[in-house]
Amino acid sequence: MATESPLLLAAVTLLSALQMGYLARQVGKSRIAHKIMPPIVTGPPEFERTFRAHQNCVEFYPVFMVLLWTSGTFFNEVTAAGAGLVYMVARQMYFNGYVKSAKKRIPGFYLNLAVLFFLSLLSFIGILRGILLKYFDVHV
Amino acid sequence: MATESPLLLAAVTLLSALQMGYLARQVGKSRIAHKIMPPIVTGPPEFERTFRAHQNCVEFYPVFMVLLWTSGTFFNEVTAAGAGLVYMVARQMYFNGYVKSAKKRIPGFYLNLAVLFFLSLLSFIGILRGILLKYFDVHV
Amino acid sequence: MATESPLLLAAVTLLSALQMGYLARQVGKSRIAHKIMPPIVTGPPEFERTFRAHQNCVEFYPVFMVLLWTSGTFFNEVTAAGAGLVYMVARQMYFNGYVKSAKKRIPGFYLNLAVLFFLSLLSFIGILRGILLKYFDVHV
Repeated sequence: MATESPLLLAAVTLLSALQMGYLARQVGKSRIAHKIMPPIVTGPPEFERTFRAHQNCVEFYPVFMVLLWTSGTFFNEVTAAGAGLVYMVARQMYFNGYVKSAKKRIPGFYLNLAVLFFLSLLSFIGILRGILLKYFDVHV
Repeated sequence: MATESPLLLAAVTLLSALQMGYLARQVGKSRIAHKIMPPIVTGPPEFERTFRAHQNCVEFYPVFMVLLWTSGTFFNEVTAAGAGLVYMVARQMYFNGYVKSAKKRIPGFYLNLAVLFFLSLLSFIGILRGILLKYFDVHV
Repeated sequence: MATESPLLLAAVTLLSALQMGYLARQVGKSRIAHKIMPPIVTGPPEFERTFRAHQNCVEFYPVFMVLLWTSGTFFNEVTAAGAGLVYMVARQMYFNGYVKSAKKRIPGFYLNLAVLFFLSLLSFIGILRGILLKYFDVHV
Protein backbone atom coordinates (compact mmCIF):
# COMPACT_ATOMS: atom_id res chain seq x y z
CA MET A 1 0.00 0.00 0.00
CA ALA A 2 1.48 3.31 -1.08
CA THR A 3 1.70 6.16 1.40
CA GLU A 4 -0.18 8.40 -1.05
CA SER A 5 -3.28 6.33 -0.29
CA PRO A 6 -6.16 8.39 1.11
CA LEU A 7 -5.92 6.96 4.63
CA LEU A 8 -7.92 9.73 6.28
CA LEU A 9 -10.85 9.26 3.87
CA ALA A 10 -10.63 5.51 4.51
CA ALA A 11 -10.62 6.09 8.30
CA VAL A 12 -13.72 8.32 8.13
CA THR A 13 -15.36 5.77 5.81
CA LEU A 14 -14.71 2.94 8.27
CA LEU A 15 -16.02 5.01 11.19
CA SER A 16 -19.15 5.95 9.23
CA ALA A 17 -19.77 2.28 8.32
CA LEU A 18 -19.55 1.40 12.02
CA GLN A 19 -21.97 4.25 12.79
CA MET A 20 -24.44 2.86 10.23
CA GLY A 21 -24.17 -0.52 11.97
CA TYR A 22 -24.76 1.16 15.33
CA LEU A 23 -27.86 2.97 14.03
CA ALA A 24 -29.26 -0.26 12.54
CA ARG A 25 -28.72 -1.85 15.96
CA GLN A 26 -30.76 0.94 17.60
CA VAL A 27 -33.70 0.07 15.32
CA GLY A 28 -33.34 -3.59 16.34
CA LYS A 29 -33.36 -2.59 20.02
CA SER A 30 -36.43 -0.39 19.46
CA ARG A 31 -38.14 -3.40 17.79
CA ILE A 32 -37.46 -5.52 20.90
CA ALA A 33 -38.50 -2.75 23.33
CA HIS A 34 -41.81 -2.20 21.52
CA LYS A 35 -42.30 -5.85 20.51
CA ILE A 36 -42.48 -5.01 16.78
CA MET A 37 -41.31 -8.12 14.98
CA PRO A 38 -40.07 -8.02 11.35
CA PRO A 39 -41.41 -7.59 8.71
CA ILE A 40 -43.71 -5.09 10.52
CA VAL A 41 -42.55 -1.46 10.21
CA THR A 42 -45.43 0.35 11.92
CA GLY A 43 -46.15 0.71 15.63
CA PRO A 44 -45.92 3.24 18.47
CA PRO A 45 -44.75 6.75 17.45
CA GLU A 46 -41.32 6.31 19.07
CA PHE A 47 -40.65 3.13 17.10
CA GLU A 48 -41.81 4.76 13.85
CA ARG A 49 -39.58 7.79 14.44
CA THR A 50 -36.58 5.53 15.19
CA PHE A 51 -37.31 3.48 12.06
CA ARG A 52 -37.64 6.58 9.84
CA ALA A 53 -34.56 8.21 11.39
CA HIS A 54 -32.52 5.17 10.34
CA GLN A 55 -34.12 5.09 6.88
CA ASN A 56 -33.14 8.71 6.31
CA CYS A 57 -29.54 7.96 7.35
CA VAL A 58 -29.55 5.03 4.89
CA GLU A 59 -30.91 7.20 2.06
CA PHE A 60 -28.19 9.80 2.49
CA TYR A 61 -25.28 7.44 3.17
CA PRO A 62 -24.25 6.75 -0.46
CA VAL A 63 -24.53 10.45 -1.30
CA PHE A 64 -22.30 11.29 1.69
CA MET A 65 -19.78 8.62 0.66
CA VAL A 66 -19.41 9.76 -2.95
CA LEU A 67 -19.12 13.44 -1.96
CA LEU A 68 -16.55 12.59 0.74
CA TRP A 69 -14.40 10.74 -1.80
CA THR A 70 -14.76 13.16 -4.72
CA SER A 71 -13.99 16.19 -2.51
CA GLY A 72 -11.17 14.35 -0.73
CA THR A 73 -9.63 13.12 -3.98
CA PHE A 74 -10.07 16.17 -6.18
CA PHE A 75 -9.93 19.03 -3.68
CA ASN A 76 -8.22 18.24 -0.35
CA GLU A 77 -8.16 15.12 1.78
CA VAL A 78 -7.81 16.68 5.25
CA THR A 79 -10.62 19.19 4.68
CA ALA A 80 -12.95 16.48 3.33
CA ALA A 81 -12.15 14.06 6.17
CA GLY A 82 -12.75 16.79 8.76
CA ALA A 83 -16.10 17.68 7.18
CA GLY A 84 -16.90 13.96 7.13
CA LEU A 85 -16.46 13.80 10.90
CA VAL A 86 -18.79 16.78 11.30
CA TYR A 87 -21.32 14.95 9.11
CA MET A 88 -21.15 11.92 11.40
CA VAL A 89 -21.75 14.08 14.49
CA ALA A 90 -24.69 15.77 12.72
CA ARG A 91 -26.14 12.37 11.79
CA GLN A 92 -26.00 11.31 15.43
CA MET A 93 -27.66 14.57 16.50
CA TYR A 94 -30.35 13.97 13.87
CA PHE A 95 -30.94 10.36 14.91
CA ASN A 96 -30.94 10.98 18.68
CA GLY A 97 -33.20 14.01 18.22
CA TYR A 98 -35.65 12.20 15.93
CA VAL A 99 -36.02 9.33 18.42
CA LYS A 100 -37.22 11.92 20.98
CA SER A 101 -39.53 13.93 18.69
CA ALA A 102 -39.97 14.73 15.00
CA LYS A 103 -39.12 18.37 15.70
CA LYS A 104 -35.80 17.56 17.38
CA ARG A 105 -34.51 16.00 14.15
CA ILE A 106 -34.30 19.47 12.54
CA PRO A 107 -30.97 20.93 13.84
CA GLY A 108 -28.97 17.79 12.96
CA PHE A 109 -30.67 17.61 9.60
CA TYR A 110 -29.72 21.15 8.60
CA LEU A 111 -26.14 20.62 9.77
CA ASN A 112 -26.06 17.45 7.61
CA LEU A 113 -27.26 19.41 4.59
CA ALA A 114 -24.69 22.15 5.25
CA VAL A 115 -21.86 19.58 5.25
CA LEU A 116 -23.15 17.96 2.06
CA PHE A 117 -23.34 21.37 0.34
CA PHE A 118 -19.81 22.11 1.52
CA LEU A 119 -18.47 18.77 0.21
CA SER A 120 -20.34 19.34 -3.09
CA LEU A 121 -18.72 22.76 -3.44
CA LEU A 122 -15.23 21.37 -2.76
CA SER A 123 -15.87 18.57 -5.26
CA PHE A 124 -17.13 21.03 -7.86
CA ILE A 125 -14.06 23.26 -7.50
CA GLY A 126 -11.65 20.31 -7.54
CA ILE A 127 -13.24 18.52 -10.50
CA LEU A 128 -13.66 21.72 -12.55
CA ARG A 129 -10.01 22.68 -11.93
CA GLY A 130 -8.97 19.15 -12.93
CA ILE A 131 -11.05 19.15 -16.12
CA LEU A 132 -9.76 22.60 -17.15
CA LEU A 133 -6.19 21.40 -16.65
CA LYS A 134 -6.53 17.98 -18.26
CA TYR A 135 -8.79 18.71 -21.22
CA PHE A 136 -8.21 22.43 -21.86
CA ASP A 137 -4.68 22.90 -20.51
CA VAL A 138 -5.92 25.80 -18.36
CA HIS A 139 -4.24 26.23 -14.95
CA VAL A 140 -6.52 27.81 -12.33
CA MET B 1 -4.03 15.31 -8.25
CA ALA B 2 -2.67 13.42 -11.23
CA THR B 3 -4.14 14.05 -14.68
CA GLU B 4 -4.84 10.32 -15.02
CA SER B 5 -7.56 10.74 -12.39
CA PRO B 6 -11.03 9.75 -13.61
CA LEU B 7 -12.37 13.32 -13.74
CA LEU B 8 -15.33 12.47 -15.96
CA LEU B 9 -16.52 9.72 -13.62
CA ALA B 10 -16.11 12.14 -10.73
CA ALA B 11 -18.09 14.81 -12.58
CA VAL B 12 -20.98 12.42 -13.30
CA THR B 13 -20.82 11.23 -9.68
CA LEU B 14 -21.07 14.80 -8.37
CA LEU B 15 -23.99 15.58 -10.73
CA SER B 16 -25.80 12.39 -9.68
CA ALA B 17 -25.32 13.24 -5.98
CA LEU B 18 -26.86 16.65 -6.64
CA GLN B 19 -29.73 14.95 -8.47
CA MET B 20 -30.31 12.67 -5.45
CA GLY B 21 -30.45 15.81 -3.28
CA TYR B 22 -32.92 17.39 -5.72
CA LEU B 23 -35.17 14.30 -5.66
CA ALA B 24 -35.11 14.19 -1.83
CA ARG B 25 -36.14 17.86 -1.91
CA GLN B 26 -39.13 16.99 -4.14
CA VAL B 27 -40.34 14.52 -1.50
CA GLY B 28 -39.98 17.25 1.15
CA LYS B 29 -42.02 19.63 -1.04
CA SER B 30 -44.67 16.95 -1.58
CA ARG B 31 -44.84 16.47 2.21
CA ILE B 32 -45.51 20.20 2.66
CA ALA B 33 -48.04 20.36 -0.21
CA HIS B 34 -50.00 17.40 1.20
CA LYS B 35 -49.38 18.24 4.88
CA ILE B 36 -47.78 14.82 5.56
CA MET B 37 -45.39 15.38 8.45
CA PRO B 38 -42.51 12.96 9.22
CA PRO B 39 -42.40 10.17 10.26
CA ILE B 40 -45.65 9.49 8.33
CA VAL B 41 -45.05 7.91 4.90
CA THR B 42 -48.62 7.27 3.76
CA GLY B 43 -51.16 9.73 2.37
CA PRO B 44 -52.79 10.80 -0.87
CA PRO B 45 -51.80 8.72 -3.94
CA GLU B 46 -49.65 11.51 -5.42
CA PHE B 47 -47.60 11.77 -2.23
CA GLU B 48 -47.19 8.00 -2.01
CA ARG B 49 -46.05 7.84 -5.65
CA THR B 50 -43.55 10.65 -5.07
CA PHE B 51 -42.28 8.93 -1.92
CA ARG B 52 -41.91 5.55 -3.67
CA ALA B 53 -40.31 7.12 -6.75
CA HIS B 54 -37.61 8.56 -4.51
CA GLN B 55 -37.20 5.28 -2.62
CA ASN B 56 -36.62 3.43 -5.88
CA CYS B 57 -33.98 5.97 -6.92
CA VAL B 58 -32.31 5.50 -3.53
CA GLU B 59 -32.36 1.70 -3.86
CA PHE B 60 -30.65 1.79 -7.24
CA TYR B 61 -28.18 4.57 -6.53
CA PRO B 62 -25.34 2.47 -5.00
CA VAL B 63 -25.72 -0.12 -7.78
CA PHE B 64 -25.47 2.67 -10.39
CA MET B 65 -22.41 4.13 -8.65
CA VAL B 66 -20.44 0.88 -8.46
CA LEU B 67 -21.25 -0.05 -12.08
CA LEU B 68 -20.30 3.46 -13.27
CA TRP B 69 -16.91 3.20 -11.56
CA THR B 70 -16.11 -0.41 -12.46
CA SER B 71 -17.02 0.11 -16.13
CA GLY B 72 -15.24 3.48 -16.24
CA THR B 73 -12.11 2.14 -14.56
CA PHE B 74 -11.83 -1.26 -16.23
CA PHE B 75 -13.42 -0.64 -19.64
CA ASN B 76 -13.53 2.99 -20.78
CA GLU B 77 -14.08 6.22 -18.86
CA VAL B 78 -15.75 8.32 -21.60
CA THR B 79 -18.25 5.57 -22.51
CA ALA B 80 -19.14 4.96 -18.86
CA ALA B 81 -19.52 8.67 -18.11
CA GLY B 82 -21.76 9.13 -21.18
CA ALA B 83 -23.93 6.19 -20.12
CA GLY B 84 -24.02 7.67 -16.61
CA LEU B 85 -25.52 10.89 -17.99
CA VAL B 86 -28.17 8.83 -19.85
CA TYR B 87 -28.93 7.06 -16.56
CA MET B 88 -29.48 10.41 -14.86
CA VAL B 89 -31.88 11.55 -17.60
CA ALA B 90 -33.73 8.20 -17.34
CA ARG B 91 -33.98 8.59 -13.54
CA GLN B 92 -35.53 12.02 -14.00
CA MET B 93 -38.00 10.62 -16.59
CA TYR B 94 -38.86 7.84 -14.13
CA PHE B 95 -39.34 10.20 -11.19
CA ASN B 96 -41.33 12.85 -13.06
CA GLY B 97 -43.48 10.15 -14.69
CA TYR B 98 -44.13 8.31 -11.41
CA VAL B 99 -45.27 11.55 -9.69
CA LYS B 100 -47.97 11.83 -12.40
CA SER B 101 -49.08 8.17 -12.47
CA ALA B 102 -47.72 4.71 -11.67
CA LYS B 103 -47.89 3.81 -15.37
CA LYS B 104 -45.79 6.79 -16.47
CA ARG B 105 -42.84 5.52 -14.44
CA ILE B 106 -42.38 2.63 -16.91
CA PRO B 107 -40.41 4.18 -19.85
CA GLY B 108 -37.81 5.80 -17.61
CA PHE B 109 -37.52 2.60 -15.60
CA TYR B 110 -36.73 0.44 -18.63
CA LEU B 111 -34.21 2.98 -19.89
CA ASN B 112 -32.58 2.86 -16.44
CA LEU B 113 -32.38 -0.92 -16.59
CA ALA B 114 -30.92 -0.78 -20.12
CA VAL B 115 -28.15 1.57 -18.95
CA LEU B 116 -27.38 -0.64 -15.92
CA PHE B 117 -27.18 -3.72 -18.17
CA PHE B 118 -24.89 -1.83 -20.53
CA LEU B 119 -22.59 -0.71 -17.69
CA SER B 120 -22.60 -4.28 -16.30
CA LEU B 121 -21.56 -5.62 -19.72
CA LEU B 122 -18.72 -3.09 -20.04
CA SER B 123 -17.59 -3.91 -16.49
CA PHE B 124 -17.71 -7.63 -17.22
CA ILE B 125 -15.61 -7.29 -20.38
CA GLY B 126 -13.11 -4.97 -18.72
CA ILE B 127 -12.70 -7.01 -15.54
CA LEU B 128 -12.50 -10.34 -17.40
CA ARG B 129 -9.86 -8.94 -19.76
CA GLY B 130 -7.93 -7.60 -16.77
CA ILE B 131 -8.10 -10.90 -14.85
CA LEU B 132 -7.01 -12.91 -17.91
CA LEU B 133 -4.03 -10.57 -18.36
CA LYS B 134 -2.99 -10.29 -14.71
CA TYR B 135 -3.53 -13.82 -13.45
CA PHE B 136 -3.28 -15.94 -16.63
CA ASP B 137 -1.02 -13.75 -18.80
CA VAL B 138 -3.59 -13.96 -21.61
CA HIS B 139 -3.96 -10.85 -23.82
CA VAL B 140 -7.47 -10.41 -25.27
CA MET C 1 -5.53 -0.16 -16.97
CA ALA C 2 -2.61 -1.07 -14.77
CA THR C 3 -2.21 -4.65 -13.52
CA GLU C 4 -2.05 -3.35 -9.93
CA SER C 5 -5.75 -2.53 -10.27
CA PRO C 6 -7.94 -4.31 -7.69
CA LEU C 7 -9.56 -6.67 -10.22
CA LEU C 8 -10.81 -9.13 -7.61
CA LEU C 9 -12.58 -6.39 -5.64
CA ALA C 10 -14.05 -5.15 -8.92
CA ALA C 11 -15.21 -8.68 -9.83
CA VAL C 12 -16.95 -9.15 -6.46
CA THR C 13 -18.45 -5.67 -6.79
CA LEU C 14 -19.86 -6.49 -10.24
CA LEU C 15 -21.27 -9.82 -8.99
CA SER C 16 -22.86 -8.13 -5.98
CA ALA C 17 -24.44 -5.45 -8.21
CA LEU C 18 -25.95 -8.23 -10.34
CA GLN C 19 -27.20 -9.92 -7.16
CA MET C 20 -28.88 -6.67 -6.09
CA GLY C 21 -30.57 -6.54 -9.50
CA TYR C 22 -31.67 -10.17 -9.09
CA LEU C 23 -33.15 -9.46 -5.63
CA ALA C 24 -35.01 -6.38 -6.92
CA ARG C 25 -36.41 -8.62 -9.68
CA GLN C 26 -37.69 -11.10 -7.04
CA VAL C 27 -39.68 -8.27 -5.42
CA GLY C 28 -41.13 -7.40 -8.84
CA LYS C 29 -42.12 -11.06 -9.37
CA SER C 30 -43.70 -11.18 -5.88
CA ARG C 31 -45.67 -8.02 -6.77
CA ILE C 32 -47.03 -9.74 -9.89
CA ALA C 33 -47.76 -13.04 -8.06
CA HIS C 34 -49.68 -11.23 -5.31
CA LYS C 35 -51.11 -8.51 -7.59
CA ILE C 36 -49.58 -5.69 -5.48
CA MET C 37 -49.11 -2.80 -7.88
CA PRO C 38 -46.71 0.09 -7.13
CA PRO C 39 -46.71 2.33 -5.17
CA ILE C 40 -48.39 -0.09 -2.70
CA VAL C 41 -45.91 -1.78 -0.32
CA THR C 42 -48.29 -3.71 1.94
CA GLY C 43 -50.10 -6.97 1.26
CA PRO C 44 -50.00 -10.69 2.12
CA PRO C 45 -47.29 -11.69 4.64
CA GLU C 46 -45.16 -13.40 1.98
CA PHE C 47 -45.06 -10.25 -0.15
CA GLU C 48 -44.25 -8.08 2.88
CA ARG C 49 -41.43 -10.41 3.91
CA THR C 50 -40.01 -10.39 0.37
CA PHE C 51 -40.27 -6.60 0.24
CA ARG C 52 -38.56 -6.17 3.64
CA ALA C 53 -35.88 -8.75 2.82
CA HIS C 54 -34.94 -6.67 -0.22
CA GLN C 55 -35.04 -3.42 1.77
CA ASN C 56 -32.63 -4.87 4.32
CA CYS C 57 -30.23 -5.91 1.53
CA VAL C 58 -30.47 -2.38 0.11
CA GLU C 59 -29.77 -0.81 3.52
CA PHE C 60 -26.61 -2.86 4.03
CA TYR C 61 -25.29 -2.72 0.46
CA PRO C 62 -23.35 0.58 0.70
CA VAL C 63 -21.87 -0.48 4.06
CA PHE C 64 -20.77 -3.79 2.51
CA MET C 65 -19.25 -1.98 -0.49
CA VAL C 66 -17.19 0.50 1.52
CA LEU C 67 -15.90 -2.18 3.90
CA LEU C 68 -15.03 -4.47 0.96
CA TRP C 69 -12.98 -1.73 -0.66
CA THR C 70 -11.30 -0.35 2.47
CA SER C 71 -10.30 -3.83 3.67
CA GLY C 72 -9.23 -4.89 0.15
CA THR C 73 -7.22 -1.73 -0.43
CA PHE C 74 -5.61 -1.26 2.99
CA PHE C 75 -5.33 -4.84 4.26
CA ASN C 76 -5.40 -7.57 1.60
CA GLU C 77 -7.32 -7.87 -1.66
CA VAL C 78 -7.69 -11.67 -1.87
CA THR C 79 -8.93 -11.99 1.73
CA ALA C 80 -11.44 -9.17 1.28
CA ALA C 81 -12.72 -10.54 -2.05
CA GLY C 82 -13.14 -14.01 -0.53
CA ALA C 83 -15.07 -12.58 2.42
CA GLY C 84 -17.14 -10.60 -0.08
CA LEU C 85 -18.21 -13.82 -1.79
CA VAL C 86 -19.20 -15.27 1.60
CA TYR C 87 -21.25 -12.11 2.23
CA MET C 88 -23.09 -12.62 -1.07
CA VAL C 89 -23.91 -16.25 -0.17
CA ALA C 90 -25.11 -15.12 3.28
CA ARG C 91 -27.29 -12.41 1.68
CA GLN C 92 -28.91 -15.04 -0.54
CA MET C 93 -29.48 -17.32 2.50
CA TYR C 94 -31.02 -14.36 4.32
CA PHE C 95 -33.28 -13.39 1.41
CA ASN C 96 -34.44 -16.92 0.55
CA GLY C 97 -35.03 -17.68 4.23
CA TYR C 98 -36.96 -14.45 4.87
CA VAL C 99 -39.28 -15.12 1.90
CA LYS C 100 -40.27 -18.40 3.62
CA SER C 101 -40.61 -17.08 7.19
CA ALA C 102 -39.33 -14.23 9.38
CA LYS C 103 -37.49 -16.76 11.55
CA LYS C 104 -35.58 -18.29 8.61
CA ARG C 105 -33.92 -14.94 7.90
CA ILE C 106 -31.82 -15.30 11.09
CA PRO C 107 -28.91 -17.63 10.10
CA GLY C 108 -28.09 -15.66 6.92
CA PHE C 109 -28.37 -12.42 8.86
CA TYR C 110 -25.84 -13.44 11.51
CA LEU C 111 -23.44 -14.72 8.86
CA ASN C 112 -23.79 -11.34 7.13
CA LEU C 113 -22.96 -9.53 10.35
CA ALA C 114 -19.96 -11.81 10.96
CA VAL C 115 -18.55 -10.98 7.51
CA LEU C 116 -19.09 -7.24 8.04
CA PHE C 117 -17.33 -7.42 11.42
CA PHE C 118 -14.46 -9.33 9.80
CA LEU C 119 -14.13 -6.76 6.99
CA SER C 120 -14.29 -3.94 9.57
CA LEU C 121 -11.49 -5.56 11.54
CA LEU C 122 -9.29 -5.98 8.45
CA SER C 123 -10.00 -2.36 7.48
CA PHE C 124 -9.18 -1.15 10.98
CA ILE C 125 -5.84 -3.02 11.04
CA GLY C 126 -4.90 -1.89 7.53
CA ILE C 127 -5.86 1.76 8.00
CA LEU C 128 -4.26 2.01 11.45
CA ARG C 129 -1.03 0.47 10.13
CA GLY C 130 -1.10 2.90 7.20
CA ILE C 131 -1.72 5.95 9.40
CA LEU C 132 1.07 4.94 11.83
CA LEU C 133 3.47 4.57 8.90
CA LYS C 134 2.46 7.69 6.97
CA TYR C 135 1.89 10.21 9.76
CA PHE C 136 4.05 8.84 12.61
CA ASP C 137 6.72 6.91 10.69
CA VAL C 138 5.98 3.83 12.83
CA HIS C 139 6.30 0.44 11.11
CA VAL C 140 4.00 -2.24 12.54
